[in-house]
Amino acid sequence: MIILGIDPGYAIVGYGIVQAERGRFASRGHGVIRTEAGIPIHLRISEIYNDMCEILHTVRPDCVAIEKLYFTNNKTTGIDVAQARGAILLAVAQSGLPYYEYTPSEVKTAVVGYGKADKHQMMELTRMQLGLSEIPRPDDAADALAIALCHARSAVSVFSQI
Amino acid sequence: MIILGIDPGYAIVGYGIVQAERGRFASRGHGVIRTEAGIPIHLRISEIYNDMCEILHTVRPDCVAIEKLYFTNNKTTGIDVAQARGAILLAVAQSGLPYYEYTPSEVKTAVVGYGKADKHQMMELTRMQLGLSEIPRPDDAADALAIALCHARSAVSVFSQI
Repeated sequence: MIILGIDPGYAIVGYGIVQAERGRFASRGHGVIRTEAGIPIHLRISEIYNDMCEILHTVRPDCVAIEKLYFTNNKTTGIDVAQARGAILLAVAQSGLPYYEYTPSEVKTAVVGYGKADKHQMMELTRMQLGLSEIPRPDDAADALAIALCHARSAVSVFSQI
Repeated sequence: MIILGIDPGYAIVGYGIVQAERGRFASRGHGVIRTEAGIPIHLRISEIYNDMCEILHTVRPDCVAIEKLYFTNNKTTGIDVAQARGAILLAVAQSGLPYYEYTPSEVKTAVVGYGKADKHQMMELTRMQLGLSEIPRPDDAADALAIALCHARSAVSVFSQI
């Protein structure tokens, strides 16, 4: 099973590809979509949508795992992240693929075993479980791999219950 | 000039068409896009995007005016409205049309002359200024006409300063 993990944003969108087979996990690539500051938000959203369609077409994953949004105090940034995420969800809907959402705490629990793990612990454990020699850069790509790994682990626990 | 006004949402998106010529304004139609409760949000967003592309193609406006988002206490609803608005902005970006954003208070000031006007005053003044015999239904369509009228009035004041 190939899982495309997505860390949504409007300045940077992280993505990571995880292959899960019989309880073994491996990274199959990662990257980011960057949009330029100062460009109107609808054009940045359009870039994100186009790039996401291209990624879905190239990677051909079996499913998509995406971070669930929560709002911090910076509501203005939150609105733009949610708007960009809407365009990402549109690309996923058009692909016909199933998608799953996870909160940051669920990702930490699945990857580290502890919902309040710090960022470095999560990245280090993502690196180890995916057999990578270094923590992927930038953080947004590492987060996306962690989200995909979280789904891989959740899927494994569902299968093992059958 | 034909202005397409949009009141964003994920359950109901209102739209209204206003023609503005030499300081005279007229309604050229209005309506809503409705999505069904219980359907996953990415599929509702996809419906909104498809319908919005169709409306832009059919109406062929000169520009789009859309309500600016602000967050109330219900942050969960706010996230879904912002996600749906992202897909609407994508459709606008793909159309290549200019778009303008107005806060509810700016719309009230332009239409009623008072930023804290109540909803009924705004709807009644929208009706009168657009030469309609009745207040358009539902509220979302009336709001969209008010947003388009707000842009028409703002455009008029810019032109009259030249």
